[in-house]
Formats: sequence, structure tokens, C-alpha cells
Amino acid sequence: MERLLLEEINSPEDIKGLDIHSLEVLAQEIRDKIIETVEQTGGHLGANLGVVELTLALHSVLSSPRDRIIWDVGHQCYAHKLITGRRDEFQTLRQMGGISGFPLPKESIHDHFGVGHSSTSISAAAGMAIARDLQGEDYKVVAVIGDGALTGGMAFEALNHIGSLGRDIVVILNDNEMSITNNVGALSDYLGRIRSDTKLYKAREDLAALLLKVPVVGKPMSKIARHFKNTLKSILPGQLFEELGFAYLGPFDGHNIPQLKKAIRAGVDRGGPVLIHVYTQKGRGHALAEESPHRYHGVGPLQVVPKKEVTSYSEVFGQSVVELARINPNVVAITAAMRDGTGLGGFAKEFPHRFFDVGIAEQHALTLAAGMAKDGLRPVVAMYSTFLQRGYDQVIHDVALQGLPVIIGVDRAGVVGDDGPTHQGVFDISFLRAVPGLTILAPRNGSELTAMLNWAIEQDGPVAIRYPRGGTTQIASMGNFDPNQGIPAQELRSGRDGVIFAVGHMVEVAMEAARLLEPEYSCGVVNIRSLKPLDESLLLKLARGTRYVLTLEDHVLAGGMGSSILELLSDDEQGIKVQRLGYPDEFVPQGSISQLHEAYGLTAQQVANTFRKAMSRGVYQLVASQEH
Amino acid sequence: MERLLLEEINSPEDIKGLDIHSLEVLAQEIRDKIIETVEQTGGHLGANLGVVELTLALHSVLSSPRDRIIWDVGHQCYAHKLITGRRDEFQTLRQMGGISGFPLPKESIHDHFGVGHSSTSISAAAGMAIARDLQGEDYKVVAVIGDGALTGGMAFEALNHIGSLGRDIVVILNDNEMSITNNVGALSDYLGRIRSDTKLYKAREDLAALLLKVPVVGKPMSKIARHFKNTLKSILPGQLFEELGFAYLGPFDGHNIPQLKKAIRAGVDRGGPVLIHVYTQKGRGHALAEESPHRYHGVGPLQVVPKKEVTSYSEVFGQSVVELARINPNVVAITAAMRDGTGLGGFAKEFPHRFFDVGIAEQHALTLAAGMAKDGLRPVVAMYSTFLQRGYDQVIHDVALQGLPVIIGVDRAGVVGDDGPTHQGVFDISFLRAVPGLTILAPRNGSELTAMLNWAIEQDGPVAIRYPRGGTTQIASMGNFDPNQGIPAQELRSGRDGVIFAVGHMVEVAMEAARLLEPEYSCGVVNIRSLKPLDESLLLKLARGTRYVLTLEDHVLAGGMGSSILELLSDDEQGIKVQRLGYPDEFVPQGSISQLHEAYGLTAQQVANTFRKAMSRGVYQLVASQEH
Repeated sequence: MERLLLEEINSPEDIKGLDIHSLEVLAQEIRDKIIETVEQTGGHLGANLGVVELTLALHSVLSSPRDRIIWDVGHQCYAHKLITGRRDEFQTLRQMGGISGFPLPKESIHDHFGVGHSSTSISAAAGMAIARDLQGEDYKVVAVIGDGALTGGMAFEALNHIGSLGRDIVVILNDNEMSITNNVGALSDYLGRIRSDTKLYKAREDLAALLLKVPVVGKPMSKIARHFKNTLKSILPGQLFEELGFAYLGPFDGHNIPQLKKAIRAGVDRGGPVLIHVYTQKGRGHALAEESPHRYHGVGPLQVVPKKEVTSYSEVFGQSVVELARINPNVVAITAAMRDGTGLGGFAKEFPHRFFDVGIAEQHALTLAAGMAKDGLRPVVAMYSTFLQRGYDQVIHDVALQGLPVIIGVDRAGVVGDDGPTHQGVFDISFLRAVPGLTILAPRNGSELTAMLNWAIEQDGPVAIRYPRGGTTQIASMGNFDPNQGIPAQELRSGRDGVIFAVGHMVEVAMEAARLLEPEYSCGVVNIRSLKPLDESLLLKLARGTRYVLTLEDHVLAGGMGSSILELLSDDEQGIKVQRLGYPDEFVPQGSISQLHEAYGLTAQQVANTFRKAMSRGVYQLVASQEH
Repeated sequence: MERLLLEEINSPEDIKGLDIHSLEVLAQEIRDKIIETVEQTGGHLGANLGVVELTLALHSVLSSPRDRIIWDVGHQCYAHKLITGRRDEFQTLRQMGGISGFPLPKESIHDHFGVGHSSTSISAAAGMAIARDLQGEDYKVVAVIGDGALTGGMAFEALNHIGSLGRDIVVILNDNEMSITNNVGALSDYLGRIRSDTKLYKAREDLAALLLKVPVVGKPMSKIARHFKNTLKSILPGQLFEELGFAYLGPFDGHNIPQLKKAIRAGVDRGGPVLIHVYTQKGRGHALAEESPHRYHGVGPLQVVPKKEVTSYSEVFGQSVVELARINPNVVAITAAMRDGTGLGGFAKEFPHRFFDVGIAEQHALTLAAGMAKDGLRPVVAMYSTFLQRGYDQVIHDVALQGLPVIIGVDRAGVVGDDGPTHQGVFDISFLRAVPGLTILAPRNGSELTAMLNWAIEQDGPVAIRYPRGGTTQIASMGNFDPNQGIPAQELRSGRDGVIFAVGHMVEVAMEAARLLEPEYSCGVVNIRSLKPLDESLLLKLARGTRYVLTLEDHVLAGGMGSSILELLSDDEQGIKVQRLGYPDEFVPQGSISQLHEAYGLTAQQVANTFRKAMSRGVYQLVASQEH
């Protein structure tokens, strides 16, 4: 077997001497390696296959780590990782203890900035360019951002700032006509116009040149002027960016290595803020991924055990919202570029005019919902827990402070697994429960999720419902909750020795732990259901009954559910002992969900052991003995 | 005395029949009323004086409450309030129980959306327009947004979305060439170009019309073409908005009522997304406010008692950062449109090249700082607590997860008074302390603030320092903290009966309460100083010593400092009783800071009473007695 060229590439320096043909061979080898690996590990296929040539061109022209390359969102860094010394560990991609699926500065000096969420690269690049200039350095700073990420407001904030700073920064707009699902918005339309007009570009520039030579005379002809004004839009690609202070270069074919090298060289040599517009094809070189780019945005490993009949929480959510919408014409659904991820594909199909994908724009999504609710609609916003962090202020001001009946589906709450620390949804209880007037629910399974949605749609105020990534065994449909009352906690098992207060899908873990403790200990289990407001009377009664409460949540301990139980029991002044299980004060790394639960002591066996230990050292007698 | 026209205006219907002359008279009366009132109550002077004519024109053309007018940021709603039935209560502006300084739906049916933070109006308007269309209504929806607020990312997210929706929405760009301090960024430059080019506009449109008639022939002349391309930028005002799918109308004189009425009529009649660009003058009609618009953005009441020699925390902060910058050339300062509010005016003057005002762009500000820190600078970001809510995700991902040494000055932490619920800084402890790796400090006074900054600049990781609005009696400079250790808590008084754990400026309240309790009870006082990490060993020792802890914070109770003490003491398993003082689960209304502290039981007298009551009912024996 012939030795691969990729085997020779141990740092970006090694591609500097390669001719175009070798680079093209290398590109194919990298594609093969990415496809082969992602089939084993899962990962972001389409985006990574789209930027192979761009990655090679960047590393050919620039000198990393001296020069900084910042990959927006970061889920297109696989080729970059393969040629920056991580080829041999690449098969550990997204595994516990392995290579991250995102750029990670502690993994390599070539990863200049940690990313994971969208639209941050231009801001980070601006910071680095300013640092460079103030320190008298002269390295290059390049941000690579997709057309989808460009719709995120903070990308615009950064363009606006940089455009007036006049510093040397290159922004490469990687335009693949879509982010995760189809791109939306005027910017996307705009980029589409540039694309469709490319062939006419030269002809129009000629026209413009000629026109300039005509002397200014005569009277205004406003109809013609208006026509001219509209025509101009398509004459000059990139005018929008030029208006914001950027020199616009492009558009270029993002799979043509010589053209890309030339463009990047021109961009860095030019100085000042430069935007280079390149077209790439998502999934390039992988027939299926080219055909169905949505489907191949993020994929799981190929070798999975035959699927059980399990429905994901997201699917249950999406289906339940469809059912609400069939009954109530005021129900509308909003997503921020996560139509399929949040299970709203069916809704979009059945109610296209009541479905709103606003692009990567979480802030706008929430305030849009608030405006809709103010004027009589019943908006349901579905957003991952980690992305809701982007819209925190809007939840406070536009939803909760105004008491508007917006339902927020907080998807992927809890650890999400292989995407790692940037995507774990482990802060939402802490930051949401500080917000007055917001009801926060967490279902134990899909049936309860449906019942909670049915309850929420009857409320006058805002309701957030958090549920995890992954499947739920759909138990028989349960009855609905009484919309005229808060959602009660549920005592699933009574116990004499202690009681576990568990939230969401951790309830099943608690149930299993209680079974493991039998017959040694009698352990009760409570499904909290409503994180805010708490079902105080039932929880107090059960806590007083055993005087030992173990709280269990798929969330950080600082300010989480257990903390709210401490607040409740402290105010109750009965001296009841509480132990809290969840994540300590550190970022939860990548790993499968079950690996992570094991690592943090959240499996049924471990929970049972914690309970057992507390009993054996008489923890709930401790208080009494200390008093005297 | 002649009866004022304003006295006849009890609803916007009453201005419908007025001729232009009467409207102009009314405008002057409204100006007088605003100036006279703000001299008594304090408030936002400049912005409100700038939009008097615009307000009258809007209400002349539109029919509120049927038609929706949404005021971005909201601090330009005074004229609107005066003509929508709140003239007689207007003198209660910003007072406890009085009229809000911002639009408030529960105050009037004419306030269609609650605002307070910037850049939300376009999203809310979009939601209302969608609601209108889905429900088959036909009211008009108009958002009024300043050029400053337009730099906020979520405004762009909304423009991008609306531009492709094609629904009838009018956005009025109120361009006063500045928001709070001078506007920054490429967008501002862009609007400036339109302004300076206005006179040439017509001539250029004539040119364009003529040029169109020339036939297309000949070869490209690239140099001329390039020149032409640049020239085009100034031919067409509003092209940037047109590219985003809006019809652009303007620019118009924002103090010319007939022209405004015509423009607004044209805008609503046109259909689809329309942007109307108007120029207004901040502080219009008030000589001093016209001259020094920064100073008259928000003003206090004129009739204040002669000022004590008190320095504000913001001033101490600004001065301390200047001193750090003199020593360390890598220190840079960043603000999001709050240069003067955050005390960074002096820094900007002394170090103009190391000062960065990014506009209303909190997300970008924080990630910019992260990028700077990654490449060796020592950025200090100053931001109000309430605005930090806008950059929460960036704190988590770009600052804390990457462990970058960014210092965040969290100004206006705690209740801020008359600006009301949208500006109270009472959530930051809850949302920040969930973030791993972030140090959170709170100084007791200005000297401690300086010492904390000096400590923070020596750390390798991120540090947030929260401090309140208002003054600090500058006590003698204290020594510095040891940069090689965490900042210790400080036992200010020892006590036998109980101990108050207090944070920030509440420490003085605790000290006074302890004095009031003498000689009846011996009450200790601890200055927490480091909210995260807590000085666990000292706090545990002191808590164990008295077995009754009263926590005191200018912050919500849900997840706040008291909650973190509960977590600490719960894990310690000693059954120590904790009572927590702070804000309950409701939005804190407007009122002076002292009124609010009184209303929520946070004065020294009230704190002493709480302590006394706990003692008298033997609260810390309760646990023991219940055990048996």
C-alpha cells in the first residue's frame, strides 16, 4: 500500500512546499480520513468536508501558530486538526478523553481560540488584532465564518466595530448557502443575489466604467432613477460589506486551491479590514452529504446497535406542539436555526405560515415571541439550553418582566455528550430560577412533556420546560394537569429512611437507586416536575417525614435545583439534612452521557451508594448530636 | 394666564385635528413641561427633547392604541406619555409608585411594549406584525430606534429577519448622531456619510438617471471602474438598508412636523418593510442640553442638597484602572457605550489608543476582551450588571471556559433606583456563580474596590467585581491583597449570638445593625468580599461559632449569596441555621435606593429587628428541639 501524503504532514509547515497537485491529493486524503473517522465516532460531516481546500489554502499562505486562524462555531476544524499534529489521535474524535470536535487551545497551539457557539470569531479576531498592534507585533489574524453564523447579532456588532477601527483583519465568509438548516433572512437573500449575478459581474463593471464618463446635465428623471437604483444592487457584489468599512474581495470558488491562495494572499497584503467571500459546498466529496446537507450536518456513528423503538424528547415536543397548533390557530413556533434539532420539522411542514426560523439569532427569537404574545398569539420557542444563554436578557425583560405567555422549550438540558463543554446544558436552572414570574418545568418522560405543554398553553404567563437530549421510553399517555393549579410534585415511592428529590430524566435513576437500596433501606422518590415554583407543601411534608433529602439533577450544583431545595428547607427551619448530587464547579468535558453520569457519581448504583453512606454515618442524626 | 394647549390633550385622538401651527405650539409646551419636570425628578432629558416633533407626527398619522408604536430603549417616551393621558401624573416621573421613565404596558394601553434595554423594538414590532397578519387584522406597527441602539446585535438580527419576511413594518431610524456617548462603529460612519451627502443627493440621482441611458459598449477600464464603485457609495443613501430588504425613505428633518407627517404617511402606505431615516437633535430646545448632550443624557434632579465629598464607585473604578494602566502597558479598557457612566472618561482621555468603546454591543465587548486576553493584553470591561445579562453566553464560553484573564467591572450591581425594574442589577450573583472558574468579588467601599482591582490584575483567570451605583465614603487606602491567595473574608466584628454575612455595600448596613443590637445581643459581622470562591474555612469557623447566620445582600434571594452560604453550610453538615435577606421572587420596582431597601427590609433597623426576632424565638435552638 502506498504511503499517504497525509502521513507526512505533522505540522502546517509541512504543506508549505507542496505544489497544487499535491495539495489536491492531500485534500482527497483528508476527505477520506474525515469520512472514515466520522463513520466511527459521529461528528459534523458536511461542514468539515466543505472547507478542506480552504483549510489547505489558509495554512499554505499563513504561518500558524504565529498567524491566527479563528474558526467560527468550530465544527469545521477537522481538516485543520489533521494537518496540525493531531492526525494520529484523530480517531479519538469526540470520545471521552479524546480529541475535541471543536478548536481547543489547550489541545494545540494552532487552535487560537476556543469556539463552539456561533458568531464569536470576528470579535475574537478583533481582540487579537488590537493586541498585536498595541504590542508592536505583525502577525496576521483571520476569522473564518459561515453565512449562517453571520446572521448572529454579535457578528454584526463585531463587523460594525472593526469596520471603523481600520486594523488589519481578514474575515473569510464561507458561504455554503446554509448553516444547519437552510439559511434565512435578508442577508441570505443578499448573498444569493451576489451568487446569481456573478456571471454578469464583469459586464456590469464595464458598464459602470463607461457610464462614469458621461457628463452631468439635464433634469432628474425619477422613474428611471428608481429603476437605476434597483439595478445597482446587483452591480456591485459586497457593497453591503463595503458600506461597513470592509474591502470586499470575491466571490471565489472555495474548492479551487490556487484561486483561494491568491485571494488570501491578496487579502492579507491589502491591509485594513478585508472580507473575502468564498463559495463552498457543504458535504463536498460525499455523495449523500452533498445531496442531503441537513441530514449530514451532524451525524452519529454508523455502527450503532439496532435502534430500539425510542422517541426523542425533541420529537415528542415537536409532535405535541403540532397537536396544540391543530386545536389553537394562535399557536406558532419559533426556532433559531434548529428546526430539525428541536423536532419542529413536522410543524414547519404542516403549518408553514405559523413557523418561523429566524436564523442563528436567539435574542431576536425570544423578543419576537414576546411581541407575538403581546398581540394575541401563543408562541412556542424551541432552543437548546446552551443557546438560551444567548437570550438571557430577553427572557428577563421581554418575556418575564412583561408576564407574556411565551413557552420556551429548553432542549438538550443536561449533559449532551460528545459535543463537550460548549454544548452541555447545565446552567439553565441557575440562571432561569433567578427570574421572577417564570415557571420552570422538567418532565420525567415524553408523556409528561406533552402534559406539561398542554398545561403551559393554558397559562397567562411564561413557562420554560427543560428536557434532555436523547430518547424517552414513551409510557402510556398520562392525563393532563389541572391548568388552574401549579403542577404538583409527584411522590413515586414513599420511604422511611430518606427521600430522593429528582428532576427530569434523573427520576428514573432515582427510582433504580431506590430499588437497589431495598430491602436494606426504605428510600422515597419524588419527581419534582415544577422547578419553579416548587410544590412547597408536598416537598416539605415529605422532607419532614424522613429528615434526609438527597437531591439529584443533571445540572451544576451552584444555584441548581438542590440549592432551591436548600432555600426551601432553610426557610422552613426544621434542620432537615440535604445532600446534593449534580456537577461540581467545573466545566463538564466531552464523553458519552452515560460516561459522564458515571464520572460524576450520577448512576443509580452510585446514587444508592451515596444514600447508603449517609445512612451508615447517621448523617441525619448528626445535626441533633452536634446540638448538645 | 392662558390655558395651555397641552391641558386639552387627554388622548392622542385630541391632536388629530390640530393644524401645523397648533402642533408646533404644543411641541413647545411639551418641551417646557419635560424640562420643568426633569429638573424636579431627574430623568433622560436629551433624548426626550429630541423626539417631541416626531412623537406628535406619529400620533397625528397613526391611531394608537389600535396602531402600535414601540419606542426602543424607551427613554424617549416622555412626550408620548404627556399626550396619552399621563399629563397630570407626570410630575411623579420615576418616583416610587409614580410614572415610569420607560414605556410600561400596565401603565397605559398606549405603551405597547415594555422596554428599558436597547435594540429590542424591531423584534417586538416583527412579532406584532406577524400576529396582526395571522389574525387578519390591519393595524400599523412602527418601531422607533436610535442610531445608537441600531448597533446592538439583536437589532440586526431583527432587520435581517424582517427584510426577508416582507410584512408591513415601519422602522423609524431616529438619527441624532449619538446614543449616550458618541456613537461608534462603521454604521455610524455610514450614517454620517449619508448626512454629509444629503445636499449632493439630488444632483447624484440626476447623474444616475442619465448614466443609465448610455449603451453598453467597450472594454473594461478597471481603474475607472474602481473609482466609480467608491463614488457610488455616496450616491445612494440607505443602500445598506435596501440591501437588507427595506425600502429606505429619507433622510428627513426630524423637527419638521409637516415633513415628518408626510414621511410617516408614505411609509405606512407603502407596505412591506420600510425604514424612515430622520435626523433629530438631542436636547433640542434646551441650550445646555444641546451643547453638552452627553451630560444631559440622564440627569438627576436640580434641587439636591449640597453634595458631600463622596466619590462614586464608578469613579473609583475608573481612576484605579488608570493607575493600573500607567504601570502596565497591556492594560486596556472596554465599554459598551457607557464611557462616562462606568467612570472610564479619564482613561479614554489619558489612553485613547488603549480605550475601546464598541457601541451598544455587550456580546462583542466581552469576546473582544477574550481575544485581547488570549494574545497578551489585560482587558478590563466595565458594564452595568443589568447589561451584563446581554453577554452571559460570552462570559461562559469566551472568558471563563477558556480561563482568560479578563476583568469584568460589574457596575450598578444591586438596586439602581428610579430607572426601575429594567435596570436593577439584582441577578448577577445568581447567573455568574453558576459559571465554573470565574472569581466574583464585591468590595465594601472604594478602597477595597481598588485593592480588588490590583489583585485581579495579577490573576491568570477571569475576575468579575460587582459594585453598586452611587457613592462610597473613601476610607483611608487599605493595603493590597496577596495576589498569590484568594481574597479572604473579613471579620469586622465578632459576636457570640449570631453573625451577619454581608456583601458589598450592605456591609455598612450590617455594621450599623450590629451596633443597634448592642448591648442586648452580641452580633458579629463578616464582609464576604469573595462571592466565589467563598473563603470557606473562615466562614465555616465563624458560622460554627455562633450557629446562627444572617445573610444580607442587595440581590435576589433565588440563587444569590445567601443561597451559596446555604450550600456551604449544608455540605458542612453541622445543622447551622441560616436566614437570608435580599429581594424576594418579584421584580423590584422604581423608587430611591433607600426607599427600596426600606420596602424590602434591608435597612439597619430592619436587619437588627430580624436578628432580634430570630433570637427571641430561639431559632437556633429550634433545630435541636425538633430533633427529639
